[in-house]
Amino acid sequence: MRLDEAIAAITPPDAAAIAAAQELHDRLTKPPGSLGRLEELGARLAGLAGRCPPPVPARPAVAVFAGDHGVHARGVSPWPQEVTAQMVANFLAGGAVVNAFARQVGADVIVVDVGVASDIPVDGDVPALRRRRIRAGTRDLSVEPAMTREEALAAVEVGLDVAADLVAAGHDLLATGDMGIANTTPAAALIAAFTGSEAVAVTGRGTGIDDATLALKTSVVRTALERERPDLADPLRTLAALGGLEHAAITGFILGAAAARVPVVLDGVIAGAAALVAAALAPDAVGAMVAGHRSAEPGATVALNHLGLAPLVDLGLRLGEGTGALLATPLVASAARVLHDVATFDSAGVADKDPS
Amino acid sequence: MRLDEAIAAITPPDAAAIAAAQELHDRLTKPPGSLGRLEELGARLAGLAGRCPPPVPARPAVAVFAGDHGVHARGVSPWPQEVTAQMVANFLAGGAVVNAFARQVGADVIVVDVGVASDIPVDGDVPALRRRRIRAGTRDLSVEPAMTREEALAAVEVGLDVAADLVAAGHDLLATGDMGIANTTPAAALIAAFTGSEAVAVTGRGTGIDDATLALKTSVVRTALERERPDLADPLRTLAALGGLEHAAITGFILGAAAARVPVVLDGVIAGAAALVAAALAPDAVGAMVAGHRSAEPGATVALNHLGLAPLVDLGLRLGEGTGALLATPLVASAARVLHDVATFDSAGVADKDPS
Repeated sequence: MRLDEAIAAITPPDAAAIAAAQELHDRLTKPPGSLGRLEELGARLAGLAGRCPPPVPARPAVAVFAGDHGVHARGVSPWPQEVTAQMVANFLAGGAVVNAFARQVGADVIVVDVGVASDIPVDGDVPALRRRRIRAGTRDLSVEPAMTREEALAAVEVGLDVAADLVAAGHDLLATGDMGIANTTPAAALIAAFTGSEAVAVTGRGTGIDDATLALKTSVVRTALERERPDLADPLRTLAALGGLEHAAITGFILGAAAARVPVVLDGVIAGAAALVAAALAPDAVGAMVAGHRSAEPGATVALNHLGLAPLVDLGLRLGEGTGALLATPLVASAARVLHDVATFDSAGVADKDPS
Repeated sequence: MRLDEAIAAITPPDAAAIAAAQELHDRLTKPPGSLGRLEELGARLAGLAGRCPPPVPARPAVAVFAGDHGVHARGVSPWPQEVTAQMVANFLAGGAVVNAFARQVGADVIVVDVGVASDIPVDGDVPALRRRRIRAGTRDLSVEPAMTREEALAAVEVGLDVAADLVAAGHDLLATGDMGIANTTPAAALIAAFTGSEAVAVTGRGTGIDDATLALKTSVVRTALERERPDLADPLRTLAALGGLEHAAITGFILGAAAARVPVVLDGVIAGAAALVAAALAPDAVGAMVAGHRSAEPGATVALNHLGLAPLVDLGLRLGEGTGALLATPLVASAARVLHDVATFDSAGVADKDPS
C-alpha cells in the first residue's frame, strides 16, 4: 500500500457509534460509569468500527519490526549491536518474552526485518519472518540524517503492507512490537521533535544505562535536534532525519491499521514515537490507537500525553518487543465484549437505581 | 474445612523458590528488571508454589459471594435490596459484566448465596449456584452487631469450602467476587477497624451516591466503629460486628486459597476488607494474595496499602462482582509464564550486556 492512499483512507471516528455505545453503557446491568476507563475504550472501539457494539477482537497479532542504528557507534547502549539479529532469531524460535505473552493472550507473532545490520542467524524457511530490509541499519543520526526520505518512505510502506496483510489474514487487533539495540535514542529524538520537548525530558535509561551513558545519550539527542531543526509540516523529513527503520515501519503499521479501521495497540516508547509521526501525517489515525501500557521510559509518557491517550497497563515494563501491548489486549477485548455480552436492566429483569 | 485447620495449614512463602525466581529472571533474554512489577509477581508466585518456575495458572475461577445488609435500611445505597437477588440471577444467566470478563479470560463463574435476603429468581437446577445461605441478610451494623460470632464463623467456613472445592476441581487461580447492595458500607467499617483509619478516609461513593448519602454513609460507619471499639486481637469478633456475610465468606475463600497455596486475586473494596480480616487471622495468607486492581473506592487503596500489595490494573472500575480481579488474571498467568517459557542468554545464543 502507498502512504498517500493510506492517509486518504483514514477518516474520523463515527460519532453516532460512539454515542450509541455511551447510551448502551448506561442501560447495561451495572451502575453507570462503573467500568471506568473501559467504558471510554468501548466507545472508542465503536467509533473506530463505525458500529455499536464494536466487534470483539478474537485474533490479535503482534508485528515486531527490527532494525539497527548508526548511532549505536556513539556508545548510547551497553548491548552489542548483534543482539538485534540474535533476538530476532530468539523471537522466531519462540523463546522471548513477546512469545510467552503472545501464547498467553492467543496472539500470533510475526517478525519483520526492516533494517537489521547483520545476518539473522536462522536456517531455512521461517514463515514468521518477513524479509523486508530497506538497509542494514540507519546512518548515525548524531552526525547526519539517519535515512534518506526515500528510505524512510519505503520503511513506512513496509509497515503499511504488514498491517494490510495481517488484516487480510483475519487479524482483528494489531499490536506494535520493536527490536533494535539503541532504538530508544531515535525514539527520544522523534518524541522531542514532534512534541517540542527538551532532550532531557524525553531521554531515558532504555534497557538500563548508567548516569554517564544517559548524559551522553541526552547530548546525542540534543545535538541531532539542533542540527535538524524539525519541520512539523514535513513529518517524513523529520522521521528520516531522526528516526529508525523500525520507527518508520511502525508508523506505517499504525496508519495501515487506522486505514483498515482495526484497533492498534501501542507498545512503549518506540511505538509512542511512531504514533506521533503517524498522527502528524494523518491526525485521525489517533482514533485507531490504544495505548497498551506506560513504559518506564519518560518519552513514552510525553508521547502519550501529546496524543491524548492514557495507557491501560502501568507495571514499570521497559522491554519493548510488543510485550506491553500484548498484556493490554485482553483489556481491549473485554471493553468490546461488555457492549456485546452484558444484559440490560430491562432484559435481565433487574431493578434500576432509584432516580433520587 | 474448619477455620482452625486452614489457619494451621498456612505457612510462609518459600524463600528459596523466591530467590531462584529472582536469579532466573536475570538470566532470561531480556534486560534485568525490564518486566518491572511482573518480575516481583513471578517471584511471589514461585514463593507461594514452593518451586521455580511456579505453575502457569490455566484454569481460573471466580466465586461471587452474595449477601444482603441490614444497614441498607439506613439509606446508604440508592439501589433496592432486591437487586442483590436479581443480579445473582443475572450472573447465573451469564448476563453480567463478570460473565463477560470470565468468557474473555477463560474463567469459570460460580455464585454462592451466603446471605441474600430474598429468593433468587431462578428455576430448576442451576449448577453454578451454591446455596449456602447462613441467614437472610445481616442485622443493621449501625445499631447492633451485624452477625453473631457463630454466623460469621459459619460464613467464613463457607468460603473455605468453596475454595477447597474449586481447587479440588482443578482450578489453579481463584478470584474473589461479591454482590450485595450496600456492601461497601460494612467494607468501609472493616477497613477502618483493621487499619485504624477514620471513617471519612475509607468511605466512598460505592456504585455512585450523592454528597448527602455519602455524608450519611460516613456517619453510619463512624457510629458503628464508636460502638464496637474494634478488637484486633479477636478478628472474628470485629468481622461479626461490622462485616457482611459475603465479606466473611471471602475471608474464608482467601484463607482456603492460601492453605492450598493457590494464588487468589482480590477484586475491589469488599475483597480488600476481607483480606484484612484474613491477614489478621493468618498473616502468612498475604503470600497468596494478588491485588487485581485499584478500585475507585478509597477504602480499597487503604486496605491494599496496609497489606503491602500493589494493584495490577488501575482503570477506575467500581463495579465489584469480581470484574477487576478477572481483568488481572492474564497478567498473573503472564508473570508465571515468563519463568516457564523464556529462553536464557546461554540457551538462545544471545550476547549479554557488556559488563561495563
